[in-house]
Amino acid sequence: MTLISALDVTDVRFPTSRDLDGSDAMNPEPDYSAAYIVLRTDDAAVAGCSLLFTTGRGNDVACAAVRTLAPYVVGRDVADLVADVGSLARALTWDGQLRWLGPEKGVMHMAIGAVVNAAWDLRARLDGQPLWRVLASLSPEEIVRQIDFAYIEDALTPSEALALLEASAAGRAMRTTTLEASGLPAYTTSAGWLGYDDAKVARLVRESVAEGFTMVKLKVGGDVESDVRRLQVARVAAGEEAHIALDANQRWGVGQAIDWMAQLAEFEPYWIEEPTSPDDVLGHRAIRDAVHPIRVATGEHVQNRVIFKQLLQAGAIDVVQIDACRVGGVNENLAILLLAAKFGVPVCPHAGGVGLCEMVQHLAMFDFVAVSGRSEGRWIEYVDHLHEHFTDPVVVEAGRYRAPLAPGGGARLRDSSIAEFRFPDGPAWASQQR
Amino acid sequence: MTLISALDVTDVRFPTSRDLDGSDAMNPEPDYSAAYIVLRTDDAAVAGCSLLFTTGRGNDVACAAVRTLAPYVVGRDVADLVADVGSLARALTWDGQLRWLGPEKGVMHMAIGAVVNAAWDLRARLDGQPLWRVLASLSPEEIVRQIDFAYIEDALTPSEALALLEASAAGRAMRTTTLEASGLPAYTTSAGWLGYDDAKVARLVRESVAEGFTMVKLKVGGDVESDVRRLQVARVAAGEEAHIALDANQRWGVGQAIDWMAQLAEFEPYWIEEPTSPDDVLGHRAIRDAVHPIRVATGEHVQNRVIFKQLLQAGAIDVVQIDACRVGGVNENLAILLLAAKFGVPVCPHAGGVGLCEMVQHLAMFDFVAVSGRSEGRWIEYVDHLHEHFTDPVVVEAGRYRAPLAPGGGARLRDSSIAEFRFPDGPAWASQQR
Repeated sequence: MTLISALDVTDVRFPTSRDLDGSDAMNPEPDYSAAYIVLRTDDAAVAGCSLLFTTGRGNDVACAAVRTLAPYVVGRDVADLVADVGSLARALTWDGQLRWLGPEKGVMHMAIGAVVNAAWDLRARLDGQPLWRVLASLSPEEIVRQIDFAYIEDALTPSEALALLEASAAGRAMRTTTLEASGLPAYTTSAGWLGYDDAKVARLVRESVAEGFTMVKLKVGGDVESDVRRLQVARVAAGEEAHIALDANQRWGVGQAIDWMAQLAEFEPYWIEEPTSPDDVLGHRAIRDAVHPIRVATGEHVQNRVIFKQLLQAGAIDVVQIDACRVGGVNENLAILLLAAKFGVPVCPHAGGVGLCEMVQHLAMFDFVAVSGRSEGRWIEYVDHLHEHFTDPVVVEAGRYRAPLAPGGGARLRDSSIAEFRFPDGPAWASQQR
Repeated sequence: MTLISALDVTDVRFPTSRDLDGSDAMNPEPDYSAAYIVLRTDDAAVAGCSLLFTTGRGNDVACAAVRTLAPYVVGRDVADLVADVGSLARALTWDGQLRWLGPEKGVMHMAIGAVVNAAWDLRARLDGQPLWRVLASLSPEEIVRQIDFAYIEDALTPSEALALLEASAAGRAMRTTTLEASGLPAYTTSAGWLGYDDAKVARLVRESVAEGFTMVKLKVGGDVESDVRRLQVARVAAGEEAHIALDANQRWGVGQAIDWMAQLAEFEPYWIEEPTSPDDVLGHRAIRDAVHPIRVATGEHVQNRVIFKQLLQAGAIDVVQIDACRVGGVNENLAILLLAAKFGVPVCPHAGGVGLCEMVQHLAMFDFVAVSGRSEGRWIEYVDHLHEHFTDPVVVEAGRYRAPLAPGGGARLRDSSIAEFRFPDGPAWASQQR
């Protein structure tokens, strides 16, 4: 019997604010960071990895939140733990004291998600499979058992979830073959950061389209005239074929979003992402009604399945953007994928940051193989930096994510990167007193 | 010029789980706790106090979250800081990196609220006034300037807020006199904890009504037969005059809330509080439609003004339950009080825990004097333990909160209590290894 021996957490920060990579209207100077988790076992060769992504300050709070969860895993039988990660997810979520810090929202909930994700990584490594394939080989009944239906049964019952999964079960083998042969579409955000000048945007958009991307994304929301100009530049560079998505990073109120988008509509953006607070279900509905046929997208900051449920019930969004590190881990994301399928809304995962591409691709691939069964109108976000720090970096070729083959959930950092970027004592930081 | 010299945070926990005081369907064994804040200045006699209430585990995470905010206050001129706490609140809320941990939700947002509240406590102590009187002496314009209208302007504009405040300005002096003479109504939750047996509930309800309380509250949601029985016992003990409110502490899904309440309706409860997830605006609306004329109440876990806005826009609740420690402090609560006034929904603050009564009474009294101008259909929750740990404990007599006269916001702990209940090294904990 192998036991979990420790839940290690390390504060790792990349000084991305020194360039303007990652700059948008709400995050002018992010230092992409991770509360990096290793679920260690008695067997030094067996460990589960995961991370909780943040944008710098507060990464220590994320680490503290993860540490409170150690008693739920340390000392447990590994085989037991990974055989039913759903039970672990429920136990963490419903802790009668920790729940006060959310409930099911904010950094405490993200910490729960990170520990849940580490358990799935451990499971996948023990199975010798990439996570997407582990998930896609579970039976419909097993998948349903992994989901906490609390607060969502008015929109999706366990039997409805089962029916959805059973309906797509027949095609799983064929779609697995398709996926392994040609991957899934990506869109790139690397061309359109708010800190880039027009010439750089034009060049990067042209290069992205030439490389095979069928959609690029531009950050907006700083200044409307500048947005009109940048979008014009990007539209010329992209040509008529490629889509341009826009992202306001919550910059606007409801009325402002509607007014601002009226000025950008002529460039036919594919979607407007995060037009306002991620908490504002009714606001998104009002914006969607006003900006139609431009789609409304949100999700990277949507705190849990309860808000996603309402966004779908209210007909408030056209695109569900799951995030690997925001909600309660793989298990809550399974619930969200099934809610999206029930309402017929496509899932286009949020990624970027550090490790988010590596992690979320598994969920998108599981969605394609076992839930929605579709790739049309679906793209996984791609941002092309910081991948070199992972032992199994994503492979994006000709605008498509290739299906990962390495065992695990994707979030294992290289030891050398941890040593270099450990905060505050790694060499990358030690010279800077903050 | 006096400067802020330190933001001290202490982990203080009371071992309340050793009895069953505070037990409900979601919090079976809370240890009422506080991340206790002291905003120190160069002048040892001048300090601002506040606390972030939690239920035990995770109080260290709350302390870590507070510590990240020190750079915003330490070294600042005290006079400057307290002259415009609204600017501080905005700066904390919109930090471009910390915002990722919410945004505006969970323990990071609660930490922001606690620091904002400490700044208000400091202001009130410097003014030599209780906080409610400091707030009630601000002009309508000054109050509006304290509010961040981001994400709520579609429901309440600054000019609408100003008009509401101006309309009630004339009556302020008279209502201040009324308040100082007779206080505001309280209801008690001390009679109805889930861990109490029927005889204890009956006795405590009788005593509460005899003492002058016009409403008592019962915890429900554990088991429907037991709830029917306990409610029957409480109804007999309360007599026909006193109201009985119910509190399910988020135990139910939407359908379950509706079914369960159908079985309790014959006892004519005044409201059902937290019937489901605090995030579920549409769910509360569905429950309200079904349980009418029983009122629906929520708020102690409502994360911010954006969710309150939607609960009001959707007509989802009959009672707004603000909490002193959940949202971004006094300033965000001012926004919520004004939203409630705009929609004509009464505010009945959540209290209990440790220090919540001491703090929230100031907001209710400000609401009475300067915003809603009413006390009918409004009660402040009261729970009768842990007050002895405060230098200025609440005074509740004959079922009414007396207006506090001591300077400050109410949350100053006695030094002896801090020393005794400091976690994990205080004598109350040192004997128990956790």
